Amino acid sequence: MCGIVGYIGKRQASSLLVEGLSKLEYRGYDSSGVAIMDPDSDDINVVKCKGRLANLEAKLNNTPLNGTLGIGHTRWATHGEPSDLNSHPHSNSDETISVVHNGIIENYINLREWLTSKGYKFLSETDTEVIPHLVDYYYKGDLLDAVMKAVSKMEGSYAIGVVCSKEPDKLVAVRKDSPLIVGLGKDECFIASDIPAVLNHTRDIYLLNDKEFVLMTRDGIKLFTEDKEEIKKDIYHVTWNADAAEKGGYEDFMLKEIHEQPKVIKDTMTSRVMPGKPITLDDITITHDQIENISKIYIVACGTAYHAGVVGKYVIEKLARIPVEIDIASEFRYRNPIIDEKTLMIVISQSGETADTLAALREARIRGARVIAVTNVVGSSVSREADDVLYTWAGPEIAVASTKAYETQLIAMYIIALYFAQHKKTLSEEELESLKEEMLTLPEKAEECLKHKEVIQKFAAKTYMHKDMFFLGRGLDYAVAMEGSLKLKEISYIHSEAYAGGELKHGPIALIEDGTIVVALATQDDLFDKMVSNVKEVKTRGANVLGIAFEGNESIEKTVDSAIYLPRINPLFAPLLSVIPLQLFSYYSAVQKGCDVDKPRNLAKSVTVE
Amino acid sequence: MCGIVGYIGKRQASSLLVEGLSKLEYRGYDSSGVAIMDPDSDDINVVKCKGRLANLEAKLNNTPLNGTLGIGHTRWATHGEPSDLNSHPHSNSDETISVVHNGIIENYINLREWLTSKGYKFLSETDTEVIPHLVDYYYKGDLLDAVMKAVSKMEGSYAIGVVCSKEPDKLVAVRKDSPLIVGLGKDECFIASDIPAVLNHTRDIYLLNDKEFVLMTRDGIKLFTEDKEEIKKDIYHVTWNADAAEKGGYEDFMLKEIHEQPKVIKDTMTSRVMPGKPITLDDITITHDQIENISKIYIVACGTAYHAGVVGKYVIEKLARIPVEIDIASEFRYRNPIIDEKTLMIVISQSGETADTLAALREARIRGARVIAVTNVVGSSVSREADDVLYTWAGPEIAVASTKAYETQLIAMYIIALYFAQHKKTLSEEELESLKEEMLTLPEKAEECLKHKEVIQKFAAKTYMHKDMFFLGRGLDYAVAMEGSLKLKEISYIHSEAYAGGELKHGPIALIEDGTIVVALATQDDLFDKMVSNVKEVKTRGANVLGIAFEGNESIEKTVDSAIYLPRINPLFAPLLSVIPLQLFSYYSAVQKGCDVDKPRNLAKSVTVE
Repeated sequence: MCGIVGYIGKRQASSLLVEGLSKLEYRGYDSSGVAIMDPDSDDINVVKCKGRLANLEAKLNNTPLNGTLGIGHTRWATHGEPSDLNSHPHSNSDETISVVHNGIIENYINLREWLTSKGYKFLSETDTEVIPHLVDYYYKGDLLDAVMKAVSKMEGSYAIGVVCSKEPDKLVAVRKDSPLIVGLGKDECFIASDIPAVLNHTRDIYLLNDKEFVLMTRDGIKLFTEDKEEIKKDIYHVTWNADAAEKGGYEDFMLKEIHEQPKVIKDTMTSRVMPGKPITLDDITITHDQIENISKIYIVACGTAYHAGVVGKYVIEKLARIPVEIDIASEFRYRNPIIDEKTLMIVISQSGETADTLAALREARIRGARVIAVTNVVGSSVSREADDVLYTWAGPEIAVASTKAYETQLIAMYIIALYFAQHKKTLSEEELESLKEEMLTLPEKAEECLKHKEVIQKFAAKTYMHKDMFFLGRGLDYAVAMEGSLKLKEISYIHSEAYAGGELKHGPIALIEDGTIVVALATQDDLFDKMVSNVKEVKTRGANVLGIAFEGNESIEKTVDSAIYLPRINPLFAPLLSVIPLQLFSYYSAVQKGCDVDKPRNLAKSVTVE
Repeated sequence: MCGIVGYIGKRQASSLLVEGLSKLEYRGYDSSGVAIMDPDSDDINVVKCKGRLANLEAKLNNTPLNGTLGIGHTRWATHGEPSDLNSHPHSNSDETISVVHNGIIENYINLREWLTSKGYKFLSETDTEVIPHLVDYYYKGDLLDAVMKAVSKMEGSYAIGVVCSKEPDKLVAVRKDSPLIVGLGKDECFIASDIPAVLNHTRDIYLLNDKEFVLMTRDGIKLFTEDKEEIKKDIYHVTWNADAAEKGGYEDFMLKEIHEQPKVIKDTMTSRVMPGKPITLDDITITHDQIENISKIYIVACGTAYHAGVVGKYVIEKLARIPVEIDIASEFRYRNPIIDEKTLMIVISQSGETADTLAALREARIRGARVIAVTNVVGSSVSREADDVLYTWAGPEIAVASTKAYETQLIAMYIIALYFAQHKKTLSEEELESLKEEMLTLPEKAEECLKHKEVIQKFAAKTYMHKDMFFLGRGLDYAVAMEGSLKLKEISYIHSEAYAGGELKHGPIALIEDGTIVVALATQDDLFDKMVSNVKEVKTRGANVLGIAFEGNESIEKTVDSAIYLPRINPLFAPLLSVIPLQLFSYYSAVQKGCDVDKPRNLAKSVTVE
């Protein structure tokens, strides 16, 4: 996964490209580079280097590039290690064509062999390098035609920007299965992987579909189908604020986003969950009969969104009594799953561009399932391809490790469960009303959970040097344990693992020894005693335990070493509260270790390749 | 699996037989018994009873048996629950012939019908009981001749010892596919299933081959071919001690049990999977209509058995196209799962006594589900409470970390999947036949997998000091990765974790750094390239990777650091082979670390509490 940008206009391209890339660094930061058309010589000048964008900036400060047309790239390595050589842009041999690419060219080995047989020489280990050579091969004086022909040979996913020194006033771009937008400025145009990259300069956007070709010249912009028919497209006007993506006084985006959770919980419930009124799902078109007809729900997602799905399975089954199967998208899509027209699929993806989730969605639709997408990004691929979309209103999430998006994904799961329960009358009106009332207290109670910072910071200060930790829970607590464990892994690089309380004795308890750190969740009233028994099992073997329970269950202190208490709520909603101390625990552990909290090593915000 | 012994000499047989059986208790302890020739009356006196050998000893103390010739047996129930009645020795109707038997008479139902038609009466549910009646039928004054004729009618595996009151100074024995040795003492001889049973009395042994007949008299011992030609055999002199002997010459029970896997795979398929014949499930009473009527299967288990269930979900869905949900027993029972009369539940438990699994079974039956139990222990709680039982014939598993039981649980999953596919006609006859053919090659291919010991030992010697490891796989490989990871945790205390290849980028890849150990499974042809991509992602970040792939996929060496190749088989059956190097890897890692392999800390063999 990478980020790409492009510019044509009257201003100096170099600094605009770097600025755009800085807004896309969440997509990858292994290396970066730009290619700028030199107006004097009509050569393409390329500067690129390994590492963070700051390295590129420094290099450009030393050797500034003159020019008003260019492309840029920030990389997350897939084929070939992060290095100067593997950085983008990539060029053909005489350096007349330059390309930036996000995605994976699946048939690159075949293309490479074929091009090699035609005399082309390759310098890098990347899949991308076949593109400039392919364009070169097909180039007969018209860059758009050459790119079209090249693309027709390419399999896989891509968003690409291409420039050619023989036509120094052109920029050609196209996407398939990787995101790409066009920004329409005054006397200037941009391409970018995501809207924030252009938001300082324009709010007028074209959202591109697969295989739509962009031809940008000094005279303006034209869009074409792969058969070279011109396309007319509506302009999408961005209304949200660029400042929303700033840190707002917090040390890091992650800490800011953790603190935004009471607000985003409220936002995501707004106009959907209201006292005395039925649950309303804005634009959802699924009918009452269709809901009655559902025999099975698949929830499919990756990473943190998958963990939201685990909670979703539990609450939908409990409240609406519809069988739910939860699956990892990368597994589901190759499983030949049993799907028919009575199957409903729910996909969850913050970015709406997660490659495996998108592929799973497509697979399910081909087999006749109806799909509801839960996503945070309006106009994302997932949102466009699903039958219905339930947007989470978390706003842009910049920190790579998801916090507020997860919280709103949970809210979406509860809303869907209540909506189905309402239609299927699996709950009485009183039960529904009482659950909604409880739910509406969440923003305020989430705010209270943020107050435990000191206890958590102290616990983290004592434990952050440990290399291994365990998170335990039963039922809904197990689902939250998974998310708490993943968070710790992602940003503090501590090897943590979540276990269902009852599974401990079937193997993992062998790892518990003197001083092992265990975080135990005990919010589920009917499982409280059993969970305390499990905690005793690890205490007996020497574990140091942080317990998380509701206020009123202070008896847990007899068993654990430290405890955090959550404000009382129906235990069904506990995940929305109990995850907050776990997020803070991972945050403070990472800060203590001196990790880059917002940009953990090896990770990217949105995984748009398999 | 059972243990047999026999004695002829000058000393009292009874106590020698019990002592011998005590060394064979690892082969089974459901019931035991002896038959002793009474020197005064020339009657055969039999004492036998249910339960541990101690029960037999107590009974013999109360009613001592006089005599210097006899046979004994310790049982691991396969056909018929553990009971006094089903205990060995078994006799003919006038109690003149007495037999002990280890193995399975595959054609016992046919033999029983035939013998019944000749007027023979059967008392027990065992397959063994056909043997004394057969010998009786053929007895014309020479025990050896009668046994030879009886054996010529028997199919399956057996080691038997036979005595006859009409020839009170003879003991006849023979083996096929079940172990049997002869111990040569001074003025006395022994037979036994295994050397330790005789080691206190002699170190001179005949190692018998299949269909070699033993005739022991007061004058000595003679060996014959099935054509009654006498055999001269070299004496094998045992140099190792008795302690090692119980472990069959292996360092630990676990290593022994790993090596028993080819055999137990074969045993568990015996009489169920046969070329040209439909899959047969012994005593299973579920009808064709009931199978047609299943709308959903729950597989519920704990620990290693749960991992067998993960494979089960995959193969049942793939072959029989019935939706399967897999769940951890301790979670399932408190989940208020959606179950009705169209739900089938499969529970898996080696011991048949796992508390959470048993509770889940009860919960499902109360709600109207039909339950099939897969267990290794005949007469266990789970087997008694389920509607149907499919026994795994792994024999007693002594090491706490399960290896051979897991392997037979996998076989059970495939058998069930094929059985349902056969009924639902989701596979053509050719497809079914071809899958059975592949399956029947497993014992031999599993044997080949055991040959990789050196590569694995070397890899383990370089990695055992690491505190963290990761196991990666996609599809069925992911299921095996889970089991490989658990095994390592259990006995080496290394914190290992399994991940689906596609999930790596969604968090855990943050933990990969220079030198991190990764075990990558790449046996699934359709996912091979994607798995190689995932391996590249971790290699790029510095991981040291052990790859496991099929022979012919040596191209993986370009990506991994070490590789192990499995003999080619349909990738659907890969889990049965790929788990073997993972078991060996955990074994050698634990040995290098100096851990107690058979009895890992904090763990128990059978978890009979919540």
